[in-house]
Amino acid sequence: MSYDPKLEKLFNPKSIAIIGATDKKHKVGYAIFKNIVYSGYKGKVYPINPHLDQIEGYKVYHSIKEVDDCIDLAIIAIPLRLIPDLLDDFKEKCIETAVIIAAGGREIGERGLQLEQQILEKARKYGIRFLGPNCLGFANTLIDLNANFGIDKPLKGKTAFISQSGALFTAIMDWAVSEKIGFSYAVSIGNMADLEFGEIIDYLGRQKEVETILIYMESLLDVKKFVDNVPNISIKKPIIVAKAGRTEAGQKAASSHTGAIAGQDFLYDTLFKRCGLVRADTVKDLFNLTEGISKQPIPKENKFVVLTNAGGPGVMAADRFGKWGVPPVELSKETIEKLNQILPPVWSHGNPVDIIGDATPERYRDSLKILFDDPEVKGIITILTPQFMTQPYETAFEVVKIVNRSKPIYFTLMGGEKLKKTNEYLENHNIPTYGTPEEAVDTMFLAYEYRKRINLLKKKEKELELDNIHKRKVSNLIKRYIQNEQLLLTEHQSKEIFKYYGIPINETFNATSEEEALKLAKKIGYPVVLKINSPDIVHKSEANGVILNIKNDQQLKKAYKQIIKNALSYKPDAKILGVSVEKYVEEGFELIIGSSRDKLFKQYLMFGQGGKFVEFYKDVSFQYPPVTPKFAQAMIEETKIYKLLKNGFRDLKPVNIKQIVEIIVRVSRLVEDHPQVLELDINPLTANGKEIFAVDGRIKLTPETEKHLIF
Amino acid sequence: MSYDPKLEKLFNPKSIAIIGATDKKHKVGYAIFKNIVYSGYKGKVYPINPHLDQIEGYKVYHSIKEVDDCIDLAIIAIPLRLIPDLLDDFKEKCIETAVIIAAGGREIGERGLQLEQQILEKARKYGIRFLGPNCLGFANTLIDLNANFGIDKPLKGKTAFISQSGALFTAIMDWAVSEKIGFSYAVSIGNMADLEFGEIIDYLGRQKEVETILIYMESLLDVKKFVDNVPNISIKKPIIVAKAGRTEAGQKAASSHTGAIAGQDFLYDTLFKRCGLVRADTVKDLFNLTEGISKQPIPKENKFVVLTNAGGPGVMAADRFGKWGVPPVELSKETIEKLNQILPPVWSHGNPVDIIGDATPERYRDSLKILFDDPEVKGIITILTPQFMTQPYETAFEVVKIVNRSKPIYFTLMGGEKLKKTNEYLENHNIPTYGTPEEAVDTMFLAYEYRKRINLLKKKEKELELDNIHKRKVSNLIKRYIQNEQLLLTEHQSKEIFKYYGIPINETFNATSEEEALKLAKKIGYPVVLKINSPDIVHKSEANGVILNIKNDQQLKKAYKQIIKNALSYKPDAKILGVSVEKYVEEGFELIIGSSRDKLFKQYLMFGQGGKFVEFYKDVSFQYPPVTPKFAQAMIEETKIYKLLKNGFRDLKPVNIKQIVEIIVRVSRLVEDHPQVLELDINPLTANGKEIFAVDGRIKLTPETEKHLIF
Repeated sequence: MSYDPKLEKLFNPKSIAIIGATDKKHKVGYAIFKNIVYSGYKGKVYPINPHLDQIEGYKVYHSIKEVDDCIDLAIIAIPLRLIPDLLDDFKEKCIETAVIIAAGGREIGERGLQLEQQILEKARKYGIRFLGPNCLGFANTLIDLNANFGIDKPLKGKTAFISQSGALFTAIMDWAVSEKIGFSYAVSIGNMADLEFGEIIDYLGRQKEVETILIYMESLLDVKKFVDNVPNISIKKPIIVAKAGRTEAGQKAASSHTGAIAGQDFLYDTLFKRCGLVRADTVKDLFNLTEGISKQPIPKENKFVVLTNAGGPGVMAADRFGKWGVPPVELSKETIEKLNQILPPVWSHGNPVDIIGDATPERYRDSLKILFDDPEVKGIITILTPQFMTQPYETAFEVVKIVNRSKPIYFTLMGGEKLKKTNEYLENHNIPTYGTPEEAVDTMFLAYEYRKRINLLKKKEKELELDNIHKRKVSNLIKRYIQNEQLLLTEHQSKEIFKYYGIPINETFNATSEEEALKLAKKIGYPVVLKINSPDIVHKSEANGVILNIKNDQQLKKAYKQIIKNALSYKPDAKILGVSVEKYVEEGFELIIGSSRDKLFKQYLMFGQGGKFVEFYKDVSFQYPPVTPKFAQAMIEETKIYKLLKNGFRDLKPVNIKQIVEIIVRVSRLVEDHPQVLELDINPLTANGKEIFAVDGRIKLTPETEKHLIF
Repeated sequence: MSYDPKLEKLFNPKSIAIIGATDKKHKVGYAIFKNIVYSGYKGKVYPINPHLDQIEGYKVYHSIKEVDDCIDLAIIAIPLRLIPDLLDDFKEKCIETAVIIAAGGREIGERGLQLEQQILEKARKYGIRFLGPNCLGFANTLIDLNANFGIDKPLKGKTAFISQSGALFTAIMDWAVSEKIGFSYAVSIGNMADLEFGEIIDYLGRQKEVETILIYMESLLDVKKFVDNVPNISIKKPIIVAKAGRTEAGQKAASSHTGAIAGQDFLYDTLFKRCGLVRADTVKDLFNLTEGISKQPIPKENKFVVLTNAGGPGVMAADRFGKWGVPPVELSKETIEKLNQILPPVWSHGNPVDIIGDATPERYRDSLKILFDDPEVKGIITILTPQFMTQPYETAFEVVKIVNRSKPIYFTLMGGEKLKKTNEYLENHNIPTYGTPEEAVDTMFLAYEYRKRINLLKKKEKELELDNIHKRKVSNLIKRYIQNEQLLLTEHQSKEIFKYYGIPINETFNATSEEEALKLAKKIGYPVVLKINSPDIVHKSEANGVILNIKNDQQLKKAYKQIIKNALSYKPDAKILGVSVEKYVEEGFELIIGSSRDKLFKQYLMFGQGGKFVEFYKDVSFQYPPVTPKFAQAMIEETKIYKLLKNGFRDLKPVNIKQIVEIIVRVSRLVEDHPQVLELDINPLTANGKEIFAVDGRIKLTPETEKHLIF
């Protein structure tokens, strides 16, 4: 637990001062007053306004000094510039928490940011914690407190909602009313000058009346606090986050909206993954997922079945699972045999299970029972269309009897008027319903995605023992390069550092004589490649200065002579430094491992398809150091090329994935140990059925020695 | 016009016989009777049932023979097996159209298919056209006729709906009732034993009360009829089609559902594109698009602007446009200047146009007016969230005043209860509203996609004059290969055919002497490549049997000797056929052009990223021959690699796209002219800044000489 105990006073106050309460109906100070006093709140309320004696019959205090009691929470609805002075009076009334409503902070620029800083300094001085500024307030339905402007009192429920955007706070809560979605807490957090996501999630996540947390996020300020708090909550309670700004166009719009360099979106994605959060693509997904997760168990594996009384919608569901790369699971012979017993002969005999248009309530019930009994099935999407023989309500009634919590079941009800009663009945019996197969499937998949993420978080692993790491040597090398003001290392220098971290490289040696070449070839092991080494010959192939696949001493001797001859015939006055000898690497997959740095998220690692077209294919995944084997494995599995690496492709044999995992972990160790490594690239990392090598690479250094790690 | 005039009698009958009408309430024959007689239909209705005298007071005829009048339409609700005999009586009553309801046709297998054939033969004999079997019937709201079982009488409207699935016919029509969407016609077409999509679309599309056609499709039977009819309609009235089965998983489910090899889904996509239809991914999209297209003009270009009173939803909209590859358009200086005049200084100064949370109705109105006046803006998404100062209804009221039909405007209303009245007001004023930014953006984009497709259809182009086509020579070659029973041609043989169609190839010549090699190099032009030509040396590089980039006679002479020497030192007993000489082609993009054949859709062409990983990247597009330049250009533009071809990438220079267009057209001509070309592949087609060449390729022949073209 790491939240400040004062948050208890903030979100669960026994007394509230409303500073700036007014009787002018178009003002925020009135809206908040009204929302608090008419919402059923049982605590004490002190409206504060120097110019009023009463509002709608309620006594008004001219200043907090007039209140002769301690106050738990101050809701401040006066302009920002007046707040620093106001805070001086708080200690006297033991006020330690506040909600600052006014806009005019950092969102208007430097001047506003300074004002926020002044307020923050005063707050720190007096030990005051606050929400805002530029926020709408919050609601706590457990004590009937609707301490905000802009929303009606929410329905009660087990969900907590945190919104960084005031507009979406209002929009989503208004939507929730019409969709009958309930909340325990709803918090508008505004500019987060003091309280940030991390601490609030920690507080809300530890309340027993909170089972799920929804977040609308625009950007993080304090990544460290997020990282320290959130995973402890997410492994117990699902946290679902919607964040706009996925595409370049979206990010451009977001940065002009938030006026801040908000960090790159893919790094948010990576953070959510690492912290066990699941990301909803749209606000609609946010609610669908909340409904799915809060009403039904979370799928244990991605083995899903679709049951339907109409073929078309079954295909739509299968399609959508296909889009996620998770085709509906194949049914066991036993289950098919059981279904044969109770279904008409023309049933689909597979998944989707099409129980035909004339399906009775009993047929729905009995076939679902079989699917519930099949331990290989981990989640069920049931589709109902109102056909001539269909009895929707009776079907729901029968189905509810056999549903148990061993696996999730969601319903897709396709239709309108004829299904309203059925919809209500299912919802009341904790079975989520969706209007389209796509929504049900997306929700099932994202629920599983949450499971997968927290499983990865919880997974225990032994630390990987890494031999061949020469930290000291690398430190010395780096120190020397920086002293010499060389920040961009050559391929050769970079590979030397890779070697000292046990990263396999295709090392290149220079031979100045045939004998030396023979010795080197023996050391490296045949087959080898010879290349002319001359500063005057840039395009070695053009000069026929490359001889591949030399298999023995005899071939090597010939090749050595040949290559010198070719070079001199290509350019008679070329200065020949020697002939380079390196291992002959067979064709393989070209991969990339990289490390780079972001202002907000610090150092991060990348893995994926390498080669020239990296930025075009964008088949890459990311992770923050320290990258342990389980995270490295997940990084690899996230890419599309993983399937080819695992199974081989055409004449390329499958690759040793474990070795790639180890290389990623070694790269992670390298950047953890040496904060001076600003950027690093291994591209290509060539991987074939036999071996894996860094064929080319580079490192960019920085003189800074401060650690840049968020985990 | 190509529909059978009898369809007028079918869809707009003056008298109807209901064969199999009954008073048993759970039977289809009752449901149809009830739907017709109680829906307000003014024509004559003759219930037919040999065992009844009346149903609910309506006189029942024991057979159609008892009716002493001509009958326009027979709705047949008796088992299929009784229908062939029944049809014998139709002529007497001049019945020429029917709706066959019963199931038990091809969907149950061979026996059912035979029954359908018998019925079809009889129908042909008597000149009877029919819908079904295995369908629900239809509705024509213009004459208040609800001639089906399973749906309530639809609301009146200007949309026609055709569904191949009975279940979705019911589900969608039920949904439409609750969404208040109206129809002029709704048709369940069932097994399409006689009437198919093509003819029905032609009929409905020519009715003045039909402005938009919605289709739910599972599979086509008669592609030719579709191709002949649909484009003539789609260029005048939008046709929107939803079809399940996009992914492999979906297709698997679809084929088990329809029990037919339904044709590959990407070929449906290609067909829709070529015929000017737009495809909706989900049923929800189908309706959203109908609303957008029927209420507002269709965007002329993809230059869209987003106007919002909240930053977050603006970002969501920008994100979604980004996902479609169409970032919001940049606003002109002039427009920004005009907006500066009326907006508060903190507005976003860009697109999305964020007019800030306290936006008044007048601010909405005035800024939208400026966007309407900007001729560079071709479509507007307006977002409204109900914030504290927002007056949603008043905003709608003001905005409606300045909306004109110069460009489309859609609203996103984010919220619930607080926006219901506003929603209704906008809908009543022909402004489509959506609940999320994503839905509004998807709809705008798909509406534009429709425009783009019909623009391409309508675009006039001159026929490309193609020189260097030697049809006769290729005919002779192909004849000879087939006579010799060689169906799979070698690279060399394939390239020879390519050459005779003016497709540039990297021709390879064999030299058996240094002198011959010199002559060939002169003919080809330097630089050239020499390769050892020996059946005993497969891996030429391994034997150092390849010498690149030979620039002059002197280098060539040396290289020739060298290569023979290398080969013999690699394998002393190798049989040397000579040395092959070919042009040295610089590195370039690797593309693919292919042609293949589908059972249903016949011959089709493919273009895209080539090389080894074609199936992995799947960056390809398709088209049906004849592929004229405009279609070839569209094919290229559809791929992701197009951007690189156009702009270059890293050290690769931009490529001559026009030349690729020409090559695609030539390949199309080749397969049009020679139906024996079953499959064809050019992979890679190497394209660099200087030249484009078929570097490798193959052709597969078939002895059949029948044309396999759907266009």
